[in-house]
Amino acid sequence: MSSKPFRVVILGAGFGGLEAARALARAPAEVTLIDRHNHHLFQPLLYQVATAALSPGDIAWPVRTIFRNQRNVQVMMAEVTGIDTTTREVLAGDELRIPYDALVLATGATHSYFGRDDWAPVAPGLKAIEDATDIRRRLLLAFERAELTENEAERRRLLTFVVIGGGPTGVELAGAMAELARHAMPQEFRRIDPATARVVLIEAGPRVLATFPEELGATARQSLERMGVQVLTGMRVTGCGPTGVECGEERIAASTIVWAAGVVASPVGSWIGADRDRAGRIKVRPDLSVPGQVDVFAVGDTASVMDAKGKPVPGNAPAAKQMGQYVGRLLAARAAGRPASPGFRYRHHGDLATIGRRSAVVALDSIRLTGLIGWWFWGIAHVWYLIGFRSRVVVSFEWLWSYLTFQRGARLITGREPLGGNAAPVPGQARALEKA
Amino acid sequence: MSSKPFRVVILGAGFGGLEAARALARAPAEVTLIDRHNHHLFQPLLYQVATAALSPGDIAWPVRTIFRNQRNVQVMMAEVTGIDTTTREVLAGDELRIPYDALVLATGATHSYFGRDDWAPVAPGLKAIEDATDIRRRLLLAFERAELTENEAERRRLLTFVVIGGGPTGVELAGAMAELARHAMPQEFRRIDPATARVVLIEAGPRVLATFPEELGATARQSLERMGVQVLTGMRVTGCGPTGVECGEERIAASTIVWAAGVVASPVGSWIGADRDRAGRIKVRPDLSVPGQVDVFAVGDTASVMDAKGKPVPGNAPAAKQMGQYVGRLLAARAAGRPASPGFRYRHHGDLATIGRRSAVVALDSIRLTGLIGWWFWGIAHVWYLIGFRSRVVVSFEWLWSYLTFQRGARLITGREPLGGNAAPVPGQARALEKA
Repeated sequence: MSSKPFRVVILGAGFGGLEAARALARAPAEVTLIDRHNHHLFQPLLYQVATAALSPGDIAWPVRTIFRNQRNVQVMMAEVTGIDTTTREVLAGDELRIPYDALVLATGATHSYFGRDDWAPVAPGLKAIEDATDIRRRLLLAFERAELTENEAERRRLLTFVVIGGGPTGVELAGAMAELARHAMPQEFRRIDPATARVVLIEAGPRVLATFPEELGATARQSLERMGVQVLTGMRVTGCGPTGVECGEERIAASTIVWAAGVVASPVGSWIGADRDRAGRIKVRPDLSVPGQVDVFAVGDTASVMDAKGKPVPGNAPAAKQMGQYVGRLLAARAAGRPASPGFRYRHHGDLATIGRRSAVVALDSIRLTGLIGWWFWGIAHVWYLIGFRSRVVVSFEWLWSYLTFQRGARLITGREPLGGNAAPVPGQARALEKA
Repeated sequence: MSSKPFRVVILGAGFGGLEAARALARAPAEVTLIDRHNHHLFQPLLYQVATAALSPGDIAWPVRTIFRNQRNVQVMMAEVTGIDTTTREVLAGDELRIPYDALVLATGATHSYFGRDDWAPVAPGLKAIEDATDIRRRLLLAFERAELTENEAERRRLLTFVVIGGGPTGVELAGAMAELARHAMPQEFRRIDPATARVVLIEAGPRVLATFPEELGATARQSLERMGVQVLTGMRVTGCGPTGVECGEERIAASTIVWAAGVVASPVGSWIGADRDRAGRIKVRPDLSVPGQVDVFAVGDTASVMDAKGKPVPGNAPAAKQMGQYVGRLLAARAAGRPASPGFRYRHHGDLATIGRRSAVVALDSIRLTGLIGWWFWGIAHVWYLIGFRSRVVVSFEWLWSYLTFQRGARLITGREPLGGNAAPVPGQARALEKA
């Protein structure tokens, strides 16, 4: 093992995969990092792309650039189609077979519609850049259509936006949508008042931000309601369609629905026949290896892990990074023939979510921050974790500019595809003026 | 006319339409500005989006925001489907009929394949944001695929980029592509050297930048060739396909082809039965009105106009702005019952094109600037004409950052649509890793 290089293959260039590769920087290992995108995405700020505050390029960086100077990493943009644990090879693209000595599964999670995949076209989730620009398109188109319609009921439907799921993503999205409607477009429309738009946040459980300390969930709810967001807890969505959302007997006519209610792990666990939890995550051992597969590890949203208190480790960026770093170090030791570290221990640093202008909730170990101070903390923490000087400068400037002017910097409706789902055909969108 | 407001309808929110609406700011007129996009696009920098230097949001602004404070402008995002010159109404969307007292046609131009529209899927042009992100995707994917392939001939094909058309757009694109390959990706690939990519600029005429003074065309060609661009003049493309370009007997195997060879005016002229030139532009009268239609005007790329010397007015942004402003002022006078100004006179301020890092050619009245000085002039002029403080800061910063680091800020491969045309199926693109 010391004569031949130790080959580590990492699937997925999210937070977990990135940290695993980084932790192998000085190891006598050859690392292959495979992702179907060419970029690493800073998902915690993706909702700001969906609400026109930031551009995709502000929060995504080519994976190659990140590893430019780490010469033992080879980046491949390819679709993984299978894993052969017998020959220890990853199958990718049409014909690639990539041998490994150790394999790290960091393929993340995707939206789960709990068996109602037919809701996907009308209630998109928010995981990739394309999701964000799709939601941005729906949101902004709704205002444009509302300005054109003569029908009062249709106008109200167009100006109703529903977010399903009251976790951090749902709360941040609902807050940002309310701000977009109330502040970003004053005086720009002649026939409608965008501030009359209705934003509804639906949560099946009893409260929003269920994983946060209870008083912060209550604070977040108050902040949302002060911004005009209607927060419906204990409501289960029973239907999503082109004209709106159903919760049992109740119907909310809406043009734009966003799904932030549930995720399911990528199916990589099923490829290797691993034991999985309800959310499809692989039940890993304390060292994050897959039971029965000493050479295969799972990190981030692909892994089901318990912390020291027996509570599940949350599916967020810090947890994914910690797991990735842990496995990277473990494999660095293995490659060098050093003894392995003890089992993975999750350190919970805190929870944070922003609700809107000058409003955020932050729970650190023993500290609670809300309002303006929480908001500053939230902003600085997020800029800190962006990759590279350029993004930090650009995002800081965009935020400062938005803060001072109340405007949004990326209010673009883009995309050629005709909008399916809950959007009525829009005048002037599907066909080109020049080609009519 | 003085009691009832004078209704001006402007089709198209490009440079011409925008200036026409602005010139009517203090006129007793109601202006309706219709575009199928929600944004005004700064087309002169679109090639920088296509080559990953800028984000779409940096060079596009919501039309509504631009006219936020001009209360007599109503902005409509809609597709115009026809014009009824008898009832003097514009037909838009599914059911909208918008009456006008004066109509300004500013719908611009689109790519012309000279009867070979079947080339469009393999050789996209560069007019809209979607075109730019599509070309960016093809360019960046070509490098990713080249890194994966084992086939040497295929690798060479993947790393060959062809730009058809040696006008300013073609020259700027070819230069930016060469820079992207040579400077933006050093050390990022492990199996290919991106700097070996071949960029070919094909021009049917005898020289590039044919509308510029001759010595500047020669300078531009030298600069391109110094950057490694192969400039082929006097070559007519006879075929474009998924595997490359044909010029008579010669074949160039290429993965990425961009069409910058010709434009044709939007078909709005045919709707109103106006007399048009070969490029579909309406042959307008000296006051830019359409012969036989005293209430209809054409500006920008939709209009065929001669300057004082009998030379055709070029199809660029300054010309469109001058025409738009002229018609706006004429209609402002008409609305106020004042006498109209004399015929339109085009003032040629100069020609400029950038070739790459520290290299541009600028022809002002009696001044010629090239090299570093030309490049600075080009950059400052373009930042100056951007709309708003935010874009000026962001674009200046992105350029400064790119200049210092040699990197590109928006190197993202986005879009869900499977790539048709000259791109082979890419491993890992069409299907999602999570859903495989």
